[in-house]
Amino acid sequence: MADPRVLIIGAGLVGTSLGLALTASGCDVVLSDAVGAHAVVAAGLGAGRVGLPGADDVDLVVVATPPSSIPAVVVDALHRYPRAVVTDVGSVKSSIVEAVQRAVPELAGRYVPSHPMAGSQFTGPLTASGSLFVDRTWVVTPVSGNTDEAVAVVVDAARRSGARVVQMDPLHHDEAVAQVSHVPHLMSILTASHLRAVPGEHLRLAGQGIKDVTRIAGSDPGLWRQIITANSSAIRVELDQVADDLRYLMGVLDDPQRLESFLSLGQAGAKALLVKHGAEPLDVSELTVEIPDEPRALARLFTDIGDAGFNVEDFELRHDPVREVGYLTIVIDTEVAEQLVGTLETKGWVAASAARKG
Amino acid sequence: MADPRVLIIGAGLVGTSLGLALTASGCDVVLSDAVGAHAVVAAGLGAGRVGLPGADDVDLVVVATPPSSIPAVVVDALHRYPRAVVTDVGSVKSSIVEAVQRAVPELAGRYVPSHPMAGSQFTGPLTASGSLFVDRTWVVTPVSGNTDEAVAVVVDAARRSGARVVQMDPLHHDEAVAQVSHVPHLMSILTASHLRAVPGEHLRLAGQGIKDVTRIAGSDPGLWRQIITANSSAIRVELDQVADDLRYLMGVLDDPQRLESFLSLGQAGAKALLVKHGAEPLDVSELTVEIPDEPRALARLFTDIGDAGFNVEDFELRHDPVREVGYLTIVIDTEVAEQLVGTLETKGWVAASAARKG
Repeated sequence: MADPRVLIIGAGLVGTSLGLALTASGCDVVLSDAVGAHAVVAAGLGAGRVGLPGADDVDLVVVATPPSSIPAVVVDALHRYPRAVVTDVGSVKSSIVEAVQRAVPELAGRYVPSHPMAGSQFTGPLTASGSLFVDRTWVVTPVSGNTDEAVAVVVDAARRSGARVVQMDPLHHDEAVAQVSHVPHLMSILTASHLRAVPGEHLRLAGQGIKDVTRIAGSDPGLWRQIITANSSAIRVELDQVADDLRYLMGVLDDPQRLESFLSLGQAGAKALLVKHGAEPLDVSELTVEIPDEPRALARLFTDIGDAGFNVEDFELRHDPVREVGYLTIVIDTEVAEQLVGTLETKGWVAASAARKG
Repeated sequence: MADPRVLIIGAGLVGTSLGLALTASGCDVVLSDAVGAHAVVAAGLGAGRVGLPGADDVDLVVVATPPSSIPAVVVDALHRYPRAVVTDVGSVKSSIVEAVQRAVPELAGRYVPSHPMAGSQFTGPLTASGSLFVDRTWVVTPVSGNTDEAVAVVVDAARRSGARVVQMDPLHHDEAVAQVSHVPHLMSILTASHLRAVPGEHLRLAGQGIKDVTRIAGSDPGLWRQIITANSSAIRVELDQVADDLRYLMGVLDDPQRLESFLSLGQAGAKALLVKHGAEPLDVSELTVEIPDEPRALARLFTDIGDAGFNVEDFELRHDPVREVGYLTIVIDTEVAEQLVGTLETKGWVAASAARKG
């Protein structure tokens, strides 16, 4: 496909990152933001140039503004750029589709909704990156009235950013993100909000577990209010099931066998997440390395791993601020695990691998 | 206090780590485990010697067996070692106290319950460490009948391991751990178990957030079944409130203002955890550093931080296996943050600090 002329509206983390990626792929990218300075900063990073193109000079408009403003901005873009395909990056689709089809039914065929599954707890230009979408899932959710050509323009842009494109219908998409993103977020919120009734001295007994569970509860309430209200129907269906599960759990707290079965369901769910990218369960091992509390310990470890040519895919560092030792857990293919353990041991590290428990 | 003669029953992570610490502090430590090989391995690591001492040759018995076996082992130890103070490391106290007082009311004055707040998602001798308890909270929960001398023996052992001793009554302790540990664990379980109803293709849309929330759900169901059934009364009180909160949340899903208020409660709770160790809120900043996907990047960063003499207290690494960039977030005092940013920038890193949002 010829390099499209792209207008990105909203120069935040996602918009700026997309501008960087599309510019690098050869597109002519124009950036616009309600806060002019944001577009200027994004342009300064190389994400495109600032301005508003002529009505016929745009092939694709990407709306990357805050969730609640997306429908109005999409409608406006459909009016202003009569030859352009318009898409958006909102994390909930059905409500936007409905709003656009209601407002401009005659133009909605050019609106192809999409949702790149990339983001970060960070915001703003510092963390924008041309590789934000590389190998991430970008869901395109065509609606009735979209031509194959219009869908292809959005798919092409997503692929240019390095993303893997998945197509599903908007309702299906919204159900999926309710399940794997919005409900987990609300569970984190419920856990963290419960602390309001907990005496301060009890918090002194808190460890790493609750910190992990409540991390995403620290996210911006204003942003999440927009996401959740936009997807409230799908979320309510899931929360009804959570409420049922909670009632069941409260009923089996004193029934060791049923309680353990339910805990095992949770363990299985946590494991299922690990293999989400493939159809087959991975044969992975956890490799644990002891990290002494020395300024250079972690530097030395990563140097040793790099020297040996291993490309660590995923890892988790448990560093406790008050303990003098930490552990680095690396999740890798079982085959490579033993090899890496051997390499590290010859360098003096205390390391061991274990098959991840099922 | 003179170096006590200590018998540790149960040579797992906690028992072995305690053996290492007490041996280093000058105690004569004997190790015992139902699985003889475990005690032998622990002794091989330097945690003590294997055996069973004579009835009058023990000043302190520490029971570090799996939770459900603790009451019986404590009762047995009170019989076998008539001069010894007996303590345990179980994470729930009231149920053990009741069982011991019911079984041997005439001996229970020598049983001083305690709970070192140290552990790990790891088990077994590899991760045992003489510094496991350093600067951790060790809760001692004296009961009626305990003499000051008996309590002092347990407090002394806890301090020898490097822990900070906190005294509270058993019921108070159990309420606290229900709030900050057991309920968060069950919230993680509820979130992860919910995935059983989620189609596999939806899991492809999962990101880091749900992975964090469900991490501890991957823990051993058998161990947690023992912990939860032992503390079910305190947990039920908390879960009743969670159920109320869930009903409230479901009622405000479409009410933007109340929803955002509730999300803010969660954000405040997540923040409260950060300041758990002090009475005063810390003035902390988050410093974010971009980590390019190069084998040496992290090694280079930690070397640069070490060179500059900074002692990083707590940090979190977000490395996405499919993205080419990661971010290291360091939580530090606001004063030092700007200094470290400056240092890193002169070394070519892209870094920024921001006050943690309230």
